[in-house]
Amino acid sequence: MSADLLGQFDPEMTDFMNQVMALYRPIFGTDNRWTMLIDGTARAGIEAALVSLVAAGDKVLVLNSGRFGLLLTEILSRIGASIETIDVPWGEIVPMETLAAAIERTSPRLVAAVHGDTSTTMAQPLDGFGALCRAAGAFSYVDVTATIGGMQIAADRWGVDVVSGGLQKCLGGPSGSAPITISDRAAEHIFRRRHIEKGIRREDIVDGHGPRIPSNYFDLAMIMDYWSEKRLNHHTEATSMLYAARECARIALGEGLEKRYARHRAAGRAMAAGLRAMGLTLFGNDSYRMSNVTGVYIPETVDGEAIRHAMRTNFEIEIGTAFGPLEGRIWRLGAMGYNAMKHKVLLTLGALEACLRAQGHPVAMGEAVPAALEAWDA
Amino acid sequence: MSADLLGQFDPEMTDFMNQVMALYRPIFGTDNRWTMLIDGTARAGIEAALVSLVAAGDKVLVLNSGRFGLLLTEILSRIGASIETIDVPWGEIVPMETLAAAIERTSPRLVAAVHGDTSTTMAQPLDGFGALCRAAGAFSYVDVTATIGGMQIAADRWGVDVVSGGLQKCLGGPSGSAPITISDRAAEHIFRRRHIEKGIRREDIVDGHGPRIPSNYFDLAMIMDYWSEKRLNHHTEATSMLYAARECARIALGEGLEKRYARHRAAGRAMAAGLRAMGLTLFGNDSYRMSNVTGVYIPETVDGEAIRHAMRTNFEIEIGTAFGPLEGRIWRLGAMGYNAMKHKVLLTLGALEACLRAQGHPVAMGEAVPAALEAWDA
Repeated sequence: MSADLLGQFDPEMTDFMNQVMALYRPIFGTDNRWTMLIDGTARAGIEAALVSLVAAGDKVLVLNSGRFGLLLTEILSRIGASIETIDVPWGEIVPMETLAAAIERTSPRLVAAVHGDTSTTMAQPLDGFGALCRAAGAFSYVDVTATIGGMQIAADRWGVDVVSGGLQKCLGGPSGSAPITISDRAAEHIFRRRHIEKGIRREDIVDGHGPRIPSNYFDLAMIMDYWSEKRLNHHTEATSMLYAARECARIALGEGLEKRYARHRAAGRAMAAGLRAMGLTLFGNDSYRMSNVTGVYIPETVDGEAIRHAMRTNFEIEIGTAFGPLEGRIWRLGAMGYNAMKHKVLLTLGALEACLRAQGHPVAMGEAVPAALEAWDA
Repeated sequence: MSADLLGQFDPEMTDFMNQVMALYRPIFGTDNRWTMLIDGTARAGIEAALVSLVAAGDKVLVLNSGRFGLLLTEILSRIGASIETIDVPWGEIVPMETLAAAIERTSPRLVAAVHGDTSTTMAQPLDGFGALCRAAGAFSYVDVTATIGGMQIAADRWGVDVVSGGLQKCLGGPSGSAPITISDRAAEHIFRRRHIEKGIRREDIVDGHGPRIPSNYFDLAMIMDYWSEKRLNHHTEATSMLYAARECARIALGEGLEKRYARHRAAGRAMAAGLRAMGLTLFGNDSYRMSNVTGVYIPETVDGEAIRHAMRTNFEIEIGTAFGPLEGRIWRLGAMGYNAMKHKVLLTLGALEACLRAQGHPVAMGEAVPAALEAWDA
């Protein structure tokens, strides 16, 4: 990110933009032409997708199983969407039969889901998701902020129209850039809402007839025109963040995606095994656990915030608090990107053991690390 | 920007956030508590300001004298504002008497202006602007993207409620972060529209009763709560961009703002004098010229794009094309941030002279550089 800045239309810069498009296709598991960046944090990508796909009054079905499902409804309600939700308790996922029934019942224009909801540490299975939506004439959107680069994203195999993520989780980069991919059919739908701003109108780009997208910054039609060979001036691409996004993808592809996902799975297995060996109880369903963040119940005799404070001040390790119904009930231990490494997991477990012991909690001493080591190699 | 990433609630990170708030107050010329960053490019700051200040149906008066005035109307129309404009030809500014009459005529809820519109290279005078608005019960907004760090911004003296900018012009940083400052009265207005998203509601933060802000990402009420000691979770602050914004401000304050503005004025004077000495005609009114970008007519016998191409390929110097009514008629030569230096201006003039001569244009050879040197020291 300390590389020299470039003018946004410098051929070297536009070449970097094209490289970014190519680099993120395998990471999203897609051949989508429209694979690029939104200049903002992960939720900027979510809002760009939703505000460009959905018009006021459109029926949208949301899989709501955690804080980030709620965020989808929050953003959609501001757009004026007519929202239907499939609500499941935090820690569970939505079975495909439930989804099929809800689509049948509600006839949505869009179905929106979160792949890995860090608030619950659960990953929503998505095979067959897009096919169900398309069969019912609905578009589909999935937020992969917390999983991209750590768990397999398969936009094309899932058949999902728009997928967006962020750099700051498993891609190990800084927050502030949101990779996004858009299927041709979704792009066609969005271009029907194209409305070029005054002052930069051009004869070669014509407006669509659909309802205008209510945000200029998040107008994916204009953003696609900017990333296309048309290079329609919109925002000024965030040069250094683009360098970061490019480097994140290069590193991930250099490691090899399969190898990278396996490393995250090993870290998740090791973390889970270590916590259990310590005598703690994991939160949620083992079958749907995200590989890169693990929820664990705070023992009732323990002051959860004091442990988090001790972890941070004595060991420089930050473990997560929780939101909503899980606040004060679980910790969330991430192992993402460069933290999904054997030594980081082992050191974290050792530190947590020491902090629990120091607070007088009867922890099984010395059990976590060997259990984690064994699970890493399993 | 290559400094280590920090967790968003790490005390070191929140301390950096507080430092950024303090560093940008003098740059905006304000004591406003609410002085912070929007995570996106400059137009993200504009949209955040407008979408948070204006509700659908609100009357907004826009000073429209260039492409970025049009951008304000564009964003406002998507919000559903009732827009009135004061239209002046590109290259002119809006006199205070005209503004006063328009406020009187339209009774707006908000008056929105651009300080320096790079599309026209003119700077709108703003002394007395806020007082006129406040006397009429209107809020005021000014976009200072192209001037912040290069020309004096005086939010408090202007009496303007919300001012937003970007890093990539005179602050010499990367695009992707938008500094913004908000007066207490505007903050109070915006907090009346506060609507905390589900999943992170807290007893110590209550919703307002005003119309909900139609964007989640640009909801300044939640963003202020995030930057406050409440640290309400909203987006994940873009760590590296925050480092960049902090460093831009530190460098600007380290140089001294008065000295920095004088350097930009010298660069603008030198550029203008050099272009005139070459026999070219400047665009726009000398009295209202931005100090950091200079518009010059493309001589009729010259192929403007060929000159831009020759400048870039032979000299690695990029000069600007133009938009709208000025497209193909003027070039725009920027001297912003680290480009507002004597040698950059002189080298640019020398290069342009050579390119014009190579295309057979009868340029006064060898006149531009000494004229610019003399003007620099004037």
